[in-house]
Amino acid sequence: MSFPKFYIGVDLGATTVKSGVVDSEGKIVAHFKVPTEGNLGPETVINNIRLSIETLLHQVEGNSVSGIGVGAPGIVSSDGCVKSPPNLKYWDNIPLRDELQKIFNYNIAVENDANAAAIAEAKFGAGVGIRDFLFVTWGTGVGGGIIMDGKIYRGPSGGAGEFGHTTINYNGPLCNCGSRGCIESYVGQKYLSQRARLLIQKNNIPSKIEELVEGNLDVIEPHIIAKAAEVGDEIAREILEESGQLFGFALASIVNLFDIEYIIIGGGISAAPPFVFQAIEQGISSRVLKPHKFSVKVFRAALGNDAGIIGAASLVM
Amino acid sequence: MSFPKFYIGVDLGATTVKSGVVDSEGKIVAHFKVPTEGNLGPETVINNIRLSIETLLHQVEGNSVSGIGVGAPGIVSSDGCVKSPPNLKYWDNIPLRDELQKIFNYNIAVENDANAAAIAEAKFGAGVGIRDFLFVTWGTGVGGGIIMDGKIYRGPSGGAGEFGHTTINYNGPLCNCGSRGCIESYVGQKYLSQRARLLIQKNNIPSKIEELVEGNLDVIEPHIIAKAAEVGDEIAREILEESGQLFGFALASIVNLFDIEYIIIGGGISAAPPFVFQAIEQGISSRVLKPHKFSVKVFRAALGNDAGIIGAASLVM
Repeated sequence: MSFPKFYIGVDLGATTVKSGVVDSEGKIVAHFKVPTEGNLGPETVINNIRLSIETLLHQVEGNSVSGIGVGAPGIVSSDGCVKSPPNLKYWDNIPLRDELQKIFNYNIAVENDANAAAIAEAKFGAGVGIRDFLFVTWGTGVGGGIIMDGKIYRGPSGGAGEFGHTTINYNGPLCNCGSRGCIESYVGQKYLSQRARLLIQKNNIPSKIEELVEGNLDVIEPHIIAKAAEVGDEIAREILEESGQLFGFALASIVNLFDIEYIIIGGGISAAPPFVFQAIEQGISSRVLKPHKFSVKVFRAALGNDAGIIGAASLVM
Repeated sequence: MSFPKFYIGVDLGATTVKSGVVDSEGKIVAHFKVPTEGNLGPETVINNIRLSIETLLHQVEGNSVSGIGVGAPGIVSSDGCVKSPPNLKYWDNIPLRDELQKIFNYNIAVENDANAAAIAEAKFGAGVGIRDFLFVTWGTGVGGGIIMDGKIYRGPSGGAGEFGHTTINYNGPLCNCGSRGCIESYVGQKYLSQRARLLIQKNNIPSKIEELVEGNLDVIEPHIIAKAAEVGDEIAREILEESGQLFGFALASIVNLFDIEYIIIGGGISAAPPFVFQAIEQGISSRVLKPHKFSVKVFRAALGNDAGIIGAASLVM
């Protein structure tokens, strides 16, 4: 007789540490959530991860847990060091895996969060049965992961998959990364909310976006614009059509160079209405080389917000 | 006692079919050259390839030849069909391998020309000992090939490596491929000669470029500008510094996404003075994510103009 196996997945986000117990079919059977407190430095953040894991271990009685996986922002080396995550303060190069291994006597793996989500989509989501695909996330920021031959492609320093810093205009807006015109600087939270504010203030028609953020135009996120577009808001539609097309332009460069056939799009935008995906597809096909025009297939990620936790847990399956 | 083995390599270019007999150390022991006559359609072009191969077989007495490789422009499928090469007329999708196999009873392989050159650099050139690198060519056009785990990465349709159509400005100049702002549209022959003409006509100082093309500003090629820069021509230097930097910007997007550590640059520009490579490196490091800033290494291709023939021959080694 064999007992069911469980895995703990931790999704280390800029604002929240989301975690869960995941079964071997990729179903989350228990959830936990705690603020990241990323501005207080690595020690506090690691303590919040520890708290999450301890709470979940307690919930499922530790002995049925087969491993712990963590998805972290930034570049993660193959030995689980997390380098320069954009939104965690005082965090240069922290050996997160080793730090957690000191505390927990379990098999532990640490991976870039978008890579973890890509693995989750490959194992349990929209990528089941597809051997090679590019997974991209479009939410507060833009990221991605490359699945090649069924496995994550990490590259020599573990940094592969950073789709957000593909340039679409070398003279474009300054990006958080220090470069200019990266796709993230065109369709990330910062840019989209500026664009929304501009259009809302210019137009006299009321926008559903304003209503959804209760007038606070500083907290506009892609998923809010998507929600407004869903109920027919014109400004939201205009913004998402524009930025969907630009997103497609950035993908086109990558399709040309790497001959990519399948693209899976996750993050907050994965809940957006179909016209956004059509705009992305149109952006791609208008800019790729002739032989790719009708061969590229774009899918919506299947695991939504749970991809982070499931992906992290997948690392130790 | 074993006899030395020889391989025939054919480099199918837009204007010339260059071919040669290559030994197993990558040395060319016999050369042949004939115009491509690409404007006369596939039948004529194939006949010119046939003529090249027959001439070389005759020269080395066919029985010591172990195979024939052809590098062709455009996307080449794994069964040797050549799709839509940009400068060959009436050429849609030709099964070049099968056509040659009907004529010659040898092992025959057909591959994209930049891929073949990448293989040559991996086997006999600047890529010896490097398992993963991006090979890019900068000449009349811009192309490339991806070496991964010591082998060429072709992608699902055989089109991988088309670096020339990486966008650096989605509103940039119209490219031959139909898209806008591809790096080829900024640093390819067409753009560079326009830029040179503009600067020559604007300035009153005489330029070495003008002298090298004997006053005919329509035939300016990157290698000509490189030659002028070498003897200190200011206009040439300005153009190559500008475009080297842009070339670096395009490479930066790719480094970010694929975490590429080694880049080998071939084509006409591989004979350019060191400052061009410094401009490329500066372009890359100013635009890549922090962890890549000091890790990317740029090399000059080692095989120069012979890479096409040696690469084609390598296909059957």
